[in-house]
Amino acid sequence: MKKREGGATSAKGFKAFGVSAGLRAKEKLDTAMLVSDVPAMAAVVTTTNAVKAAPVIWDDAIIGDDYQIKAVIVNSGNANACTGLQGIEAVHAEVSAVAAALSCDIHEVAVASTGVIGVPLPVQKIVDAVPELVAGLSSDAEASDKASRAILTTDTVPKTAAVQVMIGGKTVTVGGMAKGSGMICPNMATMLSFVTTDCAITRDCLQTMLTETVGDTYNMMSVDGDMSTNDTVLVLANGLAGNKEIVNKNSADYLTLKKALYTVNEMLAKAIVRDGEGATKLIEVDLTGAATETEAKILAKGVVTSNLVKAAFFGEDANWGRVLSSLGSTGIAFDPQQVSVTFKSNGGSVDLFKKGHPVPFDEAKAKKVLEEKEITVLVKMGEGAASAKSWGCDLTYDYVKINGEYRT
Amino acid sequence: MKKREGGATSAKGFKAFGVSAGLRAKEKLDTAMLVSDVPAMAAVVTTTNAVKAAPVIWDDAIIGDDYQIKAVIVNSGNANACTGLQGIEAVHAEVSAVAAALSCDIHEVAVASTGVIGVPLPVQKIVDAVPELVAGLSSDAEASDKASRAILTTDTVPKTAAVQVMIGGKTVTVGGMAKGSGMICPNMATMLSFVTTDCAITRDCLQTMLTETVGDTYNMMSVDGDMSTNDTVLVLANGLAGNKEIVNKNSADYLTLKKALYTVNEMLAKAIVRDGEGATKLIEVDLTGAATETEAKILAKGVVTSNLVKAAFFGEDANWGRVLSSLGSTGIAFDPQQVSVTFKSNGGSVDLFKKGHPVPFDEAKAKKVLEEKEITVLVKMGEGAASAKSWGCDLTYDYVKINGEYRT
Repeated sequence: MKKREGGATSAKGFKAFGVSAGLRAKEKLDTAMLVSDVPAMAAVVTTTNAVKAAPVIWDDAIIGDDYQIKAVIVNSGNANACTGLQGIEAVHAEVSAVAAALSCDIHEVAVASTGVIGVPLPVQKIVDAVPELVAGLSSDAEASDKASRAILTTDTVPKTAAVQVMIGGKTVTVGGMAKGSGMICPNMATMLSFVTTDCAITRDCLQTMLTETVGDTYNMMSVDGDMSTNDTVLVLANGLAGNKEIVNKNSADYLTLKKALYTVNEMLAKAIVRDGEGATKLIEVDLTGAATETEAKILAKGVVTSNLVKAAFFGEDANWGRVLSSLGSTGIAFDPQQVSVTFKSNGGSVDLFKKGHPVPFDEAKAKKVLEEKEITVLVKMGEGAASAKSWGCDLTYDYVKINGEYRT
Repeated sequence: MKKREGGATSAKGFKAFGVSAGLRAKEKLDTAMLVSDVPAMAAVVTTTNAVKAAPVIWDDAIIGDDYQIKAVIVNSGNANACTGLQGIEAVHAEVSAVAAALSCDIHEVAVASTGVIGVPLPVQKIVDAVPELVAGLSSDAEASDKASRAILTTDTVPKTAAVQVMIGGKTVTVGGMAKGSGMICPNMATMLSFVTTDCAITRDCLQTMLTETVGDTYNMMSVDGDMSTNDTVLVLANGLAGNKEIVNKNSADYLTLKKALYTVNEMLAKAIVRDGEGATKLIEVDLTGAATETEAKILAKGVVTSNLVKAAFFGEDANWGRVLSSLGSTGIAFDPQQVSVTFKSNGGSVDLFKKGHPVPFDEAKAKKVLEEKEITVLVKMGEGAASAKSWGCDLTYDYVKINGEYRT
């Protein structure tokens, strides 16, 4: 597998563009379109929040009904959530405008929104921007960059990733763009990710693969533990790489594509955490020796979700006690006498806790490990053979500032 | 029921004292003793954290074995956790010293510790302080105050509560002292609560009553969502009020005492949250209309545990969207079209969301509600008849400072 520069238009036959439709202040880019030359197989994972925004309801419905997807329209600045029937009507207006412009069926148009909730979407602005979006569609880097910027809210950098693999003698590309948890008053964190590939694959295989990789990537990251009404991960596969269609979930081709999809999703998830609100550090938890895979995931996620752990990393303190306590807080039963904890980074490695006992450590050495921007917490549970990774960021003054004083 | 001034020595036959044993810097009070004139029925609820400190293991064992409790020794400054066998040996030294001084069995002595973890407890200092503790034991306000201060870590004020009820023609008193989640480098939040009553009651009735009220009080509060290795709620009932022993969980006497115990526990829990690290506001969630009581609790707790909600209250923003999202994040299924949200305080009341739709509101009026120190979030789920309350505090710069920069 080769990582390469690129994003949502790296795979064959995908074009994108981003414009300012006037949804946000100061003429910021706020609306993006992503189009496939031919309708693509689609898979989607959306928020598990009981409160679902209208675009989420729409995407679940059309993709659940096996429609292939020709285009996606995404806006920032307004989440089109919690406004009752108005929300669904706004989605209908969007997909109608895009379908008319691209001469496709409205059910071939997916939609995503992020931003303020409870305020009616000024949908006419988006409808009016469709011709400019269509006119600008391109697979070149500049157009792709505009799309990746138009979906951002308080993210400080656009997030893209792309890899290439060989499948059946053909070069297959998987690329994507994402936005992380950003606040606009008064709303909540929303994570959006759009992944494209030119691989030929059945919808069923694509959905299974997406669900599995989302469970190991986006679902294993924590900026603040909250899940938004609008979270969406969408994958489109248009088959233009010319490989023989992947139809078997046990085939080598399936596993190759799955690894590529996992890698793109992990790259995007880490980019989101690294750019978490107010974050100064990326914390990776690499947990091994759990009894089962489910327990491994719960334990690893427990560490990066703990405010006490997150604040300790902000303070650059080698606080193995909070790591241990966060593991214990998950409700998973384990023997603390078997647990070991090590902190590692480009600054070195320091053992802190070994099989139930604190390890005396050199404070200066620990400081060198902890002052780095990316730190790995190695946890050995000593219970079994299952493992999991999770990603989180530190809890900082700026997190409180962004989320508490966004009005001022 | 009458609320009255007082604490852990308000009920008949309880004495306490607090001294400085030299476990903390600057001669702070750090060790407390609580003694009943006669051995008392005991009930205990301890941490569900898989990592349990030695004192927690001891208390669970002796009370689980139906020993009555004569004395409790509590220290701050060191949690006696995560040091392997040394921890159990330290507990043994403590209970032996106390039992010798009070001429009782070692199994009649309960133990609690809070403070730094992973550092061996300097137990000799506690053993050496036992004579001074015993000499000072008294039921007067000054001795009780010293005990309530000796158990604190970063709490800014001692927490005590007391109420009186009539049971079988006798005045029964329930009182208590508690400490909240406070950090000492490098440790974690620990909640300790010691409740005493002169009521006569069987151990079985007392344990059931405690478990039920803990589920509705301490377990419904959130300062930062983490559960420590040392959390302990202990209740002692010495029977000196002279009432006929409560033996029946359906009796009127049982219900009267339960209400008194609930009230003391709620008062202590609210005091802990109000004094949460860096907290400037107490947030009470009063949730009604849930389908089941379990769901009501999960939903109510979900709101006060959300960092986004907590940060919004710090920012004094009428952010119903984050409340709604935090409800949805719990995994409980509900229809957002039935949900209503109102914020209320001494500054007034403002409806924000009604049956699925945002309610236009007066920003100035909302500001008056939100600038108060205690705010109630009224949530109507519209699903059923179950209700629950929860308590939390806002997320502030000072929380991050205390937990991230405690070393500097």
